[in-house]
Amino acid sequence: MSSVPELAISRRIRRTPFTERVEALGVQGYSIVNHTLLPKAFGRSIEEDYWHLREYVQLWDVSCQRQVEIRGPDAARLVQWMTPRDLRHAKIGQCLYITLIDQNAGMINDPILLKLAEDHFWLSIADSDVLLWAKGLSLGCGFDVMVDEPDVSPLAVQGPKAEVLMEKVFGPSVRNIRFFHFGTVDFNGTPLRVSRSGYSRQDGFEIYLDKSSLGLDLWDTLWEAGQKFNVSPGYPNLVERVEGGLLSYGNEMTRANNPLECNLDHYCCLDDSVDYIGREALQRIAETGPIQRIRGVIFEGNPTPPCASPWPIMADGKQVGHSTTVVWSLQLKANLSLAMIHADFWNTGQSIQVETPEGLKRNGTVAEFPLSFL
Amino acid sequence: MSSVPELAISRRIRRTPFTERVEALGVQGYSIVNHTLLPKAFGRSIEEDYWHLREYVQLWDVSCQRQVEIRGPDAARLVQWMTPRDLRHAKIGQCLYITLIDQNAGMINDPILLKLAEDHFWLSIADSDVLLWAKGLSLGCGFDVMVDEPDVSPLAVQGPKAEVLMEKVFGPSVRNIRFFHFGTVDFNGTPLRVSRSGYSRQDGFEIYLDKSSLGLDLWDTLWEAGQKFNVSPGYPNLVERVEGGLLSYGNEMTRANNPLECNLDHYCCLDDSVDYIGREALQRIAETGPIQRIRGVIFEGNPTPPCASPWPIMADGKQVGHSTTVVWSLQLKANLSLAMIHADFWNTGQSIQVETPEGLKRNGTVAEFPLSFL
Repeated sequence: MSSVPELAISRRIRRTPFTERVEALGVQGYSIVNHTLLPKAFGRSIEEDYWHLREYVQLWDVSCQRQVEIRGPDAARLVQWMTPRDLRHAKIGQCLYITLIDQNAGMINDPILLKLAEDHFWLSIADSDVLLWAKGLSLGCGFDVMVDEPDVSPLAVQGPKAEVLMEKVFGPSVRNIRFFHFGTVDFNGTPLRVSRSGYSRQDGFEIYLDKSSLGLDLWDTLWEAGQKFNVSPGYPNLVERVEGGLLSYGNEMTRANNPLECNLDHYCCLDDSVDYIGREALQRIAETGPIQRIRGVIFEGNPTPPCASPWPIMADGKQVGHSTTVVWSLQLKANLSLAMIHADFWNTGQSIQVETPEGLKRNGTVAEFPLSFL
Repeated sequence: MSSVPELAISRRIRRTPFTERVEALGVQGYSIVNHTLLPKAFGRSIEEDYWHLREYVQLWDVSCQRQVEIRGPDAARLVQWMTPRDLRHAKIGQCLYITLIDQNAGMINDPILLKLAEDHFWLSIADSDVLLWAKGLSLGCGFDVMVDEPDVSPLAVQGPKAEVLMEKVFGPSVRNIRFFHFGTVDFNGTPLRVSRSGYSRQDGFEIYLDKSSLGLDLWDTLWEAGQKFNVSPGYPNLVERVEGGLLSYGNEMTRANNPLECNLDHYCCLDDSVDYIGREALQRIAETGPIQRIRGVIFEGNPTPPCASPWPIMADGKQVGHSTTVVWSLQLKANLSLAMIHADFWNTGQSIQVETPEGLKRNGTVAEFPLSFL
């Protein structure tokens, strides 16, 4: 491996309403999600950012979580058709974690669905062009819906001090926003949607800025009010999310995987009560059960480099799975991998070996997932 | 602006069959296209790589040009429905530059279409998930087609010495492959599709490697044979492509633009002889003509930083367009921008001012596009 490469800049890789502030705060690394910059490093180690996230509050520019807006007479019908989750009892104001699958039950994305009205939804998406999927489906079916990507850029406020910071800026009503629900706050006369959610296991909120021109004001207001709570810039923390068992589309799963392999059984209606793309395929898989599932794997040795491609996981001299994301767990003081493991080897306590890129085979064991003992 | 940021590594950002060699050759920068690494720097300046490209031969890892495969009884029908280009006379073995548009005539992508058989096509795509668009359309319509992303990773061989290098490795039959056509060559017993095409104005080929496990062998074979032709690693060269008038989806145009704005009139059938998505919208636009078009803009001053977001272009004290990509032209020894310019101001010789991020207004003029005088 060469040294860490730079990111080439172009308009195609979109800046966000917050990029200017993120740059001023010394961003040193990005990932790209949905053709958009996602800050990933600010000059402190991931460990320092981890401990800070668990104690204070961070602002995350997660504008890359683009919204796919589905609106119109057939909106509810299209959204239900796109997901195995039973949405018949979904309420306005609710956020719902859903999977989107294709006709083979392969995962297309795993967005958060925001139900804005009976005929109006946002899908807050992971890294794939769900907009094109939804547009293609609705056009092909002749559904009476409008599908678009509105000017909405989420800003996440994450950490145990998130609530006091949000209250200071938006008033006490933010306390009434329940987990995986959203409400509306006032920002200098502009109403903004705010959900209690985020890509961490700490408390937190996501502010759906729907007017890019207010981005710097919004950032500055939170930043100034956050000084007394030791606010810092942050980003979805790899160590925290892996310890917390949060999946990442494109890392843990791709179109080659179905939701049952991702332990998302709870979000799949497997009887015939709702109709959705891939239902037959998913029912067939459920009959016999998936042949592999995501598990935790704890393994020995020094911290590894990042997992840039799946690493083979071996047992009894053959490959029984692959790692998808690997971190140095600060709770376990050991290497911790999310890994896709074959059914015959996924039981807790199973001995395995991880083949890391240095050519070493490192001994480890399968752990339950998520790691409830952390 | 802070210093150039690093790219965060994860499995989600896919490595290619050639990444190991690209790393060994000291890659220093990447862009991300279609969730895949695209090398963009190898330690020489873009100017050095430009002059090298125009004199010798380069290997480009353009695996990010993913193939969307459309196959089956309704394949030709689906492909024609997806593009305004009249495909009735397309021949097997032909590569065709096409636009994909939505029902509002907004650009979804601008791939190269490879016609493999009457019922079998590849779309060699720019940066958007055309796979999801095509899958959504075919599923919605109930078309009898298979839509997939096969294991195909293009390797481009570009530069005036490309033909002699290709001949040395694959034999003299490569000379018979005409521009924008493809043929088949033998690589150690494996047939590989090869087109005479590429994202430069130099001569060149693209090899569609459809077996990832052969990637390192293929690279090494071309690399060793290329030593006598002064081969080097390369990448789509920003200066060369802008001087050559090659567009980049996501930079010059987005879903907010239609093909006529991109000067792609020649690739649009505007009568009723073929049916495609967005035809009515495109016909309406054609009636009055587009209100803006891509032009070249030459402007004064020192080289600028990269154009990370559109820069305003002013005339008569108001905004009349925006720059999309800006380079220091080595032919003109001046700043050269591709720019979207309003109809009232797009004539060659029009005086304009470019507002660069330093806060300066730089004087310039509109040039015809492409820059045929280069």
